[in-house]
Amino acid sequence: MKKILITCFEPFGGEKINPSEEAVGKVSAPRGCELKKLRLPVRWGEAQKSLFDAIDAFLPDAVLMTGQAGGSSAIRIERVAMNLCGAIKDENGLYATGGTEEAELPIREGAPAAYFSTLDCKKIQNALKAEDIPAVLSYSAGTYICNYIMFSALDRFACENRKISAGFIHLPYANCRKDGAPSMELDVMTRALEIALAQIILGEKL
Amino acid sequence: MKKILITCFEPFGGEKINPSEEAVGKVSAPRGCELKKLRLPVRWGEAQKSLFDAIDAFLPDAVLMTGQAGGSSAIRIERVAMNLCGAIKDENGLYATGGTEEAELPIREGAPAAYFSTLDCKKIQNALKAEDIPAVLSYSAGTYICNYIMFSALDRFACENRKISAGFIHLPYANCRKDGAPSMELDVMTRALEIALAQIILGEKL
Amino acid sequence: MKKILITCFEPFGGEKINPSEEAVGKVSAPRGCELKKLRLPVRWGEAQKSLFDAIDAFLPDAVLMTGQAGGSSAIRIERVAMNLCGAIKDENGLYATGGTEEAELPIREGAPAAYFSTLDCKKIQNALKAEDIPAVLSYSAGTYICNYIMFSALDRFACENRKISAGFIHLPYANCRKDGAPSMELDVMTRALEIALAQIILGEKL
Amino acid sequence: MKKILITCFEPFGGEKINPSEEAVGKVSAPRGCELKKLRLPVRWGEAQKSLFDAIDAFLPDAVLMTGQAGGSSAIRIERVAMNLCGAIKDENGLYATGGTEEAELPIREGAPAAYFSTLDCKKIQNALKAEDIPAVLSYSAGTYICNYIMFSALDRFACENRKISAGFIHLPYANCRKDGAPSMELDVMTRALEIALAQIILGEKL
Repeated sequence: MKKILITCFEPFGGEKINPSEEAVGKVSAPRGCELKKLRLPVRWGEAQKSLFDAIDAFLPDAVLMTGQAGGSSAIRIERVAMNLCGAIKDENGLYATGGTEEAELPIREGAPAAYFSTLDCKKIQNALKAEDIPAVLSYSAGTYICNYIMFSALDRFACENRKISAGFIHLPYANCRKDGAPSMELDVMTRALEIALAQIILGEKL
Repeated sequence: MKKILITCFEPFGGEKINPSEEAVGKVSAPRGCELKKLRLPVRWGEAQKSLFDAIDAFLPDAVLMTGQAGGSSAIRIERVAMNLCGAIKDENGLYATGGTEEAELPIREGAPAAYFSTLDCKKIQNALKAEDIPAVLSYSAGTYICNYIMFSALDRFACENRKISAGFIHLPYANCRKDGAPSMELDVMTRALEIALAQIILGEKL
Repeated sequence: MKKILITCFEPFGGEKINPSEEAVGKVSAPRGCELKKLRLPVRWGEAQKSLFDAIDAFLPDAVLMTGQAGGSSAIRIERVAMNLCGAIKDENGLYATGGTEEAELPIREGAPAAYFSTLDCKKIQNALKAEDIPAVLSYSAGTYICNYIMFSALDRFACENRKISAGFIHLPYANCRKDGAPSMELDVMTRALEIALAQIILGEKL
Repeated sequence: MKKILITCFEPFGGEKINPSEEAVGKVSAPRGCELKKLRLPVRWGEAQKSLFDAIDAFLPDAVLMTGQAGGSSAIRIERVAMNLCGAIKDENGLYATGGTEEAELPIREGAPAAYFSTLDCKKIQNALKAEDIPAVLSYSAGTYICNYIMFSALDRFACENRKISAGFIHLPYANCRKDGAPSMELDVMTRALEIALAQIILGEKL
């Protein structure tokens, strides 16, 4: 029985829903998997603490993180996370410094510039495409909380030398929008996450 | 009391819903307006007959036709309809000839090449933009049943010299899609149609 | 020997060149064709006068008009011209009224709403695609001088009941731009016009 | 007098020119700068060797690498290079393994996952925007030879603990194309590189 922690985010930026929360809420645990679902806040610091607490309590074998990529029209499987908090205000109205003065800074001073996902991203992409779900490999998870969380998990597992596979999947909007932006059926995204979980159970990369 | 006929289409091309049917279904008649709703088939010939029958029975002062513009991310207010049935198979699998051999033909042999919408498209666009609803003027309603219906109504009113204002509004998808295409909130589109109706009541162009 | 008048436009809107002028300048007359080249001003009124004067002097069997479609990444073969001067200031800084007050008006009061191109647009598109040149059929030539000129020619030939085939082809930018917009090789566009001319000689639609 | 090595690439993928070669060829050395220009092959292994040889011979204070980002409509200033040779055949028809069997592999086994550019990318972007040149920060330099060269330089300077600032700038196409893809004026791109060089001379980040 493999223990997998799957995370999503709360709505942010004025959105009423976050596709990651909707899809994760509907995901069924594949056979052979004990699944723990966790909703993270879109706040520097707090998001990381919440993630780390859940890892300590649940002791997962793998962590699949998910988030919203507004404007994307495909599932994005992130291959790499950077050691960078962009100059973006979080839901508390604060930069990663905890202050209101615009600033960009490393996620962890002294940590490597980046980590690769330890999921088999290509295998997940192929499995999605086999079911005609639009899916791309992405080489940048952005500079906001999604990248922050992905980097934080990979950095911690690397530092502690723990064999926990971890990676991130970005989802398009799950709701029709006033501005006519691209969106994707929630059922398709839910299915995409179940396909990814099934691939993780089959044998992660690490 | 102004009588307005508002039309929409059935789902087509394998879609489960048609945004025009969804939005028209939810539209409330603005004050001073008796509203008649009509769903048209996506079939050459039948769509026109159904429209003409409703016009004969209801005797509207204005006709607002609506349809789906898949892939669009804004409300499209059509300014002109062409005398052309494109070489496109309808839901019966037939071309406008009624046959299966690829063919393009005029909607009515001997009719003018085109008619302008007799709605005040610019005023409707301005009213939509005043409520931050993405709206563009369009100078081509395509070559399928939407253009066919718009042309048919305008042609008939011109031939009979009847002062009935008529025009067409294209709507983006109303549902999230597997392919991540643009879509728009149903409530926004419903509101857009109510705004258009209110403008039509205020005084049409003709 | 078929006489064909081919027209292009001067640069406008601050551009240094107009792709239509560049391409028409390089076009060679296909065999069996006497070709007359004409550069038109981007000015309401003057453009039409210049076109009509050339038609009177040259007495062509066919007229191929060309212009710039900034932002397009394909050759656009226009199927229809509308009886509409959009509310756009020309190179003299004037609207189609000849004044500076924003106004939209018909090209010719009392004329039909539109004319179809009397070239065989589909045949031209197929001939272009056969040489791997990106080409689309377009159902709107816009509301500026290109549409104005196309309508003017078709309207005049219809009024005078003259069997002169006429149509319009829009071209992408021919130069690399500061804003990184799409553009197309001049040689490809020149070739495209020669292919169109060859199709016109073979036998026009009318 | 600061010594700067500026590199570009040969044309590849069937292209007749490479915008980086064209722009670098025209770049003038800003005042206070000794500029060395180097054209690199689009071949795994050889590109790196050629770069390293030039660094050894010239002993630059800074290295500005440039390449082609086909399809982009803006100057892209790369912030990060990954330790990854994508599964892409080079101009010799070989993968980074030197063989023909599809494979993805690290640029240097055991090296960090990524390095950040040691140029002040934000300052360069601001300087470009001050002259209305479209410029974006990019967080992925792709997985081909551009990323390979950027990573190789940064990795070597880090390993040898040398204070040589280095970074990469991607350029749009410099020629109009048959497929109507975005492109940018060569003079604008040449100017962009001179602006970047001036910023590097003013004081690099490191």
